[in-house]
Amino acid sequence: MISRVMSAELAEHAGQRVTIAGWVHRRRQLKSLSFLVVRDRTGLAQAVTGAGLPPEESVVEVTGTVTASAQAPGGFELVSPEIEVLSEPSAPPPFDLYRPVVTATLPTILDHAPAALRHPLLRAPLEISAASVAGFRQALDRLGFTEVHTPKIVASATESGANVFGIDYFGRPAYLAQSPQFYKQAMAGVFERVYEVGPVFRAEPHDTVRHLAQYTSLDAELGFIRDHRDVMAVLREAVAGMLESVRRRAAHAVELLGAALPEVPAEIPAVHFTEAQRLTGEDEPDLSPAQERWLSEWALRERGSEFLFVTGYPMSKRPFYTHPDPARPGYSNGFDLLFRGLELVTGGQRLHRYEDYLEALAARGEGVRAYEGYLQAFRYGMPPHGGFALGLERWTARLTGAANIRQTTAFPRDLHRLSP
Amino acid sequence: MISRVMSAELAEHAGQRVTIAGWVHRRRQLKSLSFLVVRDRTGLAQAVTGAGLPPEESVVEVTGTVTASAQAPGGFELVSPEIEVLSEPSAPPPFDLYRPVVTATLPTILDHAPAALRHPLLRAPLEISAASVAGFRQALDRLGFTEVHTPKIVASATESGANVFGIDYFGRPAYLAQSPQFYKQAMAGVFERVYEVGPVFRAEPHDTVRHLAQYTSLDAELGFIRDHRDVMAVLREAVAGMLESVRRRAAHAVELLGAALPEVPAEIPAVHFTEAQRLTGEDEPDLSPAQERWLSEWALRERGSEFLFVTGYPMSKRPFYTHPDPARPGYSNGFDLLFRGLELVTGGQRLHRYEDYLEALAARGEGVRAYEGYLQAFRYGMPPHGGFALGLERWTARLTGAANIRQTTAFPRDLHRLSP
Repeated sequence: MISRVMSAELAEHAGQRVTIAGWVHRRRQLKSLSFLVVRDRTGLAQAVTGAGLPPEESVVEVTGTVTASAQAPGGFELVSPEIEVLSEPSAPPPFDLYRPVVTATLPTILDHAPAALRHPLLRAPLEISAASVAGFRQALDRLGFTEVHTPKIVASATESGANVFGIDYFGRPAYLAQSPQFYKQAMAGVFERVYEVGPVFRAEPHDTVRHLAQYTSLDAELGFIRDHRDVMAVLREAVAGMLESVRRRAAHAVELLGAALPEVPAEIPAVHFTEAQRLTGEDEPDLSPAQERWLSEWALRERGSEFLFVTGYPMSKRPFYTHPDPARPGYSNGFDLLFRGLELVTGGQRLHRYEDYLEALAARGEGVRAYEGYLQAFRYGMPPHGGFALGLERWTARLTGAANIRQTTAFPRDLHRLSP
Repeated sequence: MISRVMSAELAEHAGQRVTIAGWVHRRRQLKSLSFLVVRDRTGLAQAVTGAGLPPEESVVEVTGTVTASAQAPGGFELVSPEIEVLSEPSAPPPFDLYRPVVTATLPTILDHAPAALRHPLLRAPLEISAASVAGFRQALDRLGFTEVHTPKIVASATESGANVFGIDYFGRPAYLAQSPQFYKQAMAGVFERVYEVGPVFRAEPHDTVRHLAQYTSLDAELGFIRDHRDVMAVLREAVAGMLESVRRRAAHAVELLGAALPEVPAEIPAVHFTEAQRLTGEDEPDLSPAQERWLSEWALRERGSEFLFVTGYPMSKRPFYTHPDPARPGYSNGFDLLFRGLELVTGGQRLHRYEDYLEALAARGEGVRAYEGYLQAFRYGMPPHGGFALGLERWTARLTGAANIRQTTAFPRDLHRLSP
């Protein structure tokens, strides 16, 4: 490995001659002095020289003496440097990566993602995203969950029918999975508690700031619950774990973006759907975006929480596998978690009896044929269970205040975009 | 949550009245006594009663007094039990899940995966797989890697051209990604060190015991290397981390399968391709399966290692992005890691100069058009870098001695199989 110290560690080497390595982030040529700012994975470091400097985005090794300097990033700089160029760019970057503010438009950024994501402000959401996933896994590992990997190619477009991508599967039609729903339920019958972090696919025909054709879904499912409230309690732990991990592993990215991280109450407040209707003075069978925003503000004001559970959505608005509320059968044991005005997570208790599935499908006028592989799991004794799905990019967008979800993933896929 | 103790914790509750919950794993009706064996995610527990017992795979809560018993699993059993049935199966399982040996054929197992995977021997490989992935991430996290999520839908079938699945992408042709190769390289230009654990897709037209149409690839890529040996050193840490995690997190599964876990030498032995040819007395430009087996045996015998690196494969046999050996340009800075007779990992140093990519593509008679999105990353200054890819299912198969790779994933996809 190239023997180097990281820019964030310079202070530990004061007075020593060390080598750093990274990209030329910025050059500043004064009359008799030149400043070279080098970017590595831990941050920026400065070298001062009288010599000429290689252009921005050159990959360099710089060997110099670590010297205190109030003006340098981190308070130390390299003096008397020798500079070795490891790799030269063959074109200037599509926009200035060294400017503190991003000057490029979103299409320019996305068209040139491999270079653009090097900008500290543009890579920061991806650091927060990586830290979030690590925290999700750690929280669920602690609770006895097992990670699973399930098929992304499926025989039938079961979850909703619409918005699926078709595949040519050895000459047969197949589809990209819209969620691991059925598989995670089956695996709850094996491991009791499972999670999966993986891509899901929606052939979303609308060009919005909130939708992607591929996104990363954080899915969990657990058995031996009393009802959906047990799922909500686990979700609370997962979200708290994600935030704790972001605080610990992505502190610099959070600071750079000026992101305000929410507190997670020991118990996230919950309102029943009917109460949400009463509060907002509406009586449609689902919540509108405006209602979701209003409820989020209400929760912050009245309950001091940026998170709010809405429980008991009408059965007519939830998928067929949703478990009804035994006390009020028109309403479900399903919930949404609202965060800063938007639905972030959908979850709930599922049906667990084979006969209940047959009945639920029949009630919706659906045949069982397309669901046969799925229904199998319930034939052999399934515990009461439930789960949830959280969209990683939506989460990161809410945390960082990104205006467009495309800023929270490296290479977004949408109605128009298929590269890079 | 259902208030319960896990079967593995019974000993800690000796003399107390506790509740366990799980599946009826086995019933044994003697003349005046019945034994009920309950299976939960931690193992088996036994209850002794005079009453009748619900059928296998019923989901039950059993409340009883924890009493020492030499015959019971774990040395304790529940006496004077009250049994509550939470969920009844509507059919008997496709084969006896309680028998110590699996009596079903592989097609039966795969057709009935949701039930079959409940058999302790069939779920064990998946526990080892989950533990392996956790160890992989932990080892790389420690080394400063960042996790990334890259597109599974791509515009062109770049990596090999053949064996790709076509998709209808909003009316345009697109393909399922065969690897995250290009994206992980681009992201090494952003984070220096990245990994991804995710599905990759191969339209493998042959029905073999070693190939799947979807498998989980453990990919890593790192910048600022001297050459491929730095990649090999990181791979060594990753593999050691995976095994350490398997030992810690999946000890019971390892024991159940009688799997012998290998030791990872501090430095895994390596032979150059030309030396491998000399040793095996062959001179084809690639290694045959028989040579790989022979070399593995040789490494165990002569070097005491179940792992062996073969380095310097001829450039003609490696992908165009492979970095040549500067000292012997016909040979590459690419390597394979052999494990127990099979290639487990492929990796190497990649080209990092834009001009080298143009030259490499031209030399193979390939146009640059299909690679434009990819080549972008190299235009803006890329450090010397390299990486590797390890197939999770192949790893698990080697560890557990599975005869067929389909036994190492929950819901395999192959030429003929698209469900469940």
